[in-house]
Amino acid sequence: MIREVNIIGCGMTKFGNRSNEGLIDLLKEASINAIKDAGINHQLIQAVYVSSMLSGELTNQTAIASALCDELCLVPAAADRIENGPASGGSAIKNAFLAIASGVYDAILVVGGEKMRNSPGDKITDLLATMTHPTAEYIHGVTMPSLAAMFTRLYMTKYGVERKHLAMVAVKNHENALKNPYAHLQRRVTLEGIFFSREAEVNNPLIAEPLRLYDMCPISDGAASILVCSNKIANKLLDSPVKIAGFGQATDIQAVSQRSDPTELKAVRLSADQAFKMAKMKREDIDVVELHDAFTILEIAESENAGFFKRGTGHIALEEGITALDGKLPINPSGGLKARGHPVGATGVAQVVELAWQLKEEAGERQVQGAQKAYCCNFGGFGNNVVSFVLRRDQ
Amino acid sequence: MIREVNIIGCGMTKFGNRSNEGLIDLLKEASINAIKDAGINHQLIQAVYVSSMLSGELTNQTAIASALCDELCLVPAAADRIENGPASGGSAIKNAFLAIASGVYDAILVVGGEKMRNSPGDKITDLLATMTHPTAEYIHGVTMPSLAAMFTRLYMTKYGVERKHLAMVAVKNHENALKNPYAHLQRRVTLEGIFFSREAEVNNPLIAEPLRLYDMCPISDGAASILVCSNKIANKLLDSPVKIAGFGQATDIQAVSQRSDPTELKAVRLSADQAFKMAKMKREDIDVVELHDAFTILEIAESENAGFFKRGTGHIALEEGITALDGKLPINPSGGLKARGHPVGATGVAQVVELAWQLKEEAGERQVQGAQKAYCCNFGGFGNNVVSFVLRRDQ
Repeated sequence: MIREVNIIGCGMTKFGNRSNEGLIDLLKEASINAIKDAGINHQLIQAVYVSSMLSGELTNQTAIASALCDELCLVPAAADRIENGPASGGSAIKNAFLAIASGVYDAILVVGGEKMRNSPGDKITDLLATMTHPTAEYIHGVTMPSLAAMFTRLYMTKYGVERKHLAMVAVKNHENALKNPYAHLQRRVTLEGIFFSREAEVNNPLIAEPLRLYDMCPISDGAASILVCSNKIANKLLDSPVKIAGFGQATDIQAVSQRSDPTELKAVRLSADQAFKMAKMKREDIDVVELHDAFTILEIAESENAGFFKRGTGHIALEEGITALDGKLPINPSGGLKARGHPVGATGVAQVVELAWQLKEEAGERQVQGAQKAYCCNFGGFGNNVVSFVLRRDQ
Repeated sequence: MIREVNIIGCGMTKFGNRSNEGLIDLLKEASINAIKDAGINHQLIQAVYVSSMLSGELTNQTAIASALCDELCLVPAAADRIENGPASGGSAIKNAFLAIASGVYDAILVVGGEKMRNSPGDKITDLLATMTHPTAEYIHGVTMPSLAAMFTRLYMTKYGVERKHLAMVAVKNHENALKNPYAHLQRRVTLEGIFFSREAEVNNPLIAEPLRLYDMCPISDGAASILVCSNKIANKLLDSPVKIAGFGQATDIQAVSQRSDPTELKAVRLSADQAFKMAKMKREDIDVVELHDAFTILEIAESENAGFFKRGTGHIALEEGITALDGKLPINPSGGLKARGHPVGATGVAQVVELAWQLKEEAGERQVQGAQKAYCCNFGGFGNNVVSFVLRRDQ
């Protein structure tokens, strides 16, 4: 029997262009929001996990978890930084989960963040590409957009996904982000504007064929934070806290072209299977989902590989409105990476924050009514390290 | 009652100048050595923790834990990189400990490594300085050697430590390293050669007054690895496995000058207190110790702050031979960071490997006879994040 882990506080910063603040300022802001939300004495916090992919490379600060601990007056709490590419946030939450589950710790702050917009775009693209295979991919000039473009082409050929479906992911997620005050991109996007019309070519230029500007998440600054704790603390504070009911994490072959089926996201499937098994739940139980749509195709592919739709049918579910905010299985009510933004180290934590808000009915205009069970997946590398969570709140 | 955690395999690479190999090669070599040592089917390994402080900055590879997982054919095992400055190794072992203790995992590979010697020394010094306080230290040109030099001066003034004592740490640790085939520096150093003689000024030039060349660890390449597991697996393989009996981790104020007593290493004390409490042991029980002597003064100061000697008396214990290999409490039988070397992300793991070897009586010429209980501390930043372990092996 694994000891239960509760989320008792959530915090975020506005995602976007935060050029006047440093990474540590963003981490601090999100952390303070989470601690205030939990309403506990900060001296109860025994450990801090910071997720950031590029804190050293982009902000010239290493061992940033120790620095944050001092800034937040949490000394002598334990502190570690976790780096797992774009799945750093999921990994940080996983390690906090295990630390609570072990019985050693009772209250832990998790905060993920990235400060990206002070650096030129080509530098960011190159740094993100350092997670690809060094000799099979990186050395040949492979970047994340180029991998996503090749993956999209394979998916289109195999499953009949069309460019219109990609655009529909963007339209849906931009629409959701309009209702999320923390989202980076808060502008309405229409199918006419980015796909159907003559102006679409101008509005939505080609970046890596077949992917266009609106198929990609923006480069964002931001941070997100949760406070997790054991039942001992949670049950004193809340009648019905949000619980991390299960998690899963799986790796895959790093070089996409070396996988037996490059269109299959095995690590998504395995991590989801593990999370549902630990949570003792089924896919049908889930009311709301956050997926890692760094590229539009990924929302479609993950929705299938995580087991919500049969492989090759995610685009049909999208077209039928099933994944819309008012659909049967809303995906990315937050706006997703596409529109909420993707400060890399923050993303995995931001997904869990959004789901916890949904389960607590604190999601404002984008509230999924009656949501009690939720799933997310945080996608590292090009799917070679994925962390999944199942959350629940009993009412 | 916390679930027990066992070390069933240990592996290292030779530390030193490994310019023909990449970081991933070193991590792989150490990991394979640990897996072979454990003698288990590698498919039992469910998770991998990689500690590295500067994998992105120095080797242009991020999310290296996922890459290693693939290289070692451990896919789909979970994988995370942990970065906590020079205490990254300790943090990785701590997280593996918690993961086993939680009951979620039964077998985990931990491997730490750094590839430093392909980069110019001034770049390394600057990158290491990025763990200091950005506005109170780094911006003013503070480096790790300059912090250590100021700390040494304070210690000399307050406690009567002399330059000769610093040299004695180096002489002792170089002597021990002669017996360690994995050590980076394997040459005899004498007090005459580096301190008493006229030639000493040439042999041992001033680097940051009062610190000289032999007061500092070298810049090394290398990796170290352990395989940890639950009793379920360990008890099938071994009659008396090495156990991680306790751990502790504590942070401190980041800027050294802002601490109420800059000569006190509070995080060392607190982390040691926690580790001994969890292990239900006393300092007197310990037979062998590994300390984080990145600078000679640190071995002396840590031996006091970890509670083995009264504050201000560590240099006397050293002078009396208590910390020598044949003394009452041998410190750094491996040669320590000073002579075994300090590939930053590897160090915390290498300390635990040395102690496990000592407890298994596999330490060859440097074996501390009858050692059954051991302690180490892995020192991050300038003491603002310290991880301690107490190991035991019942015979």
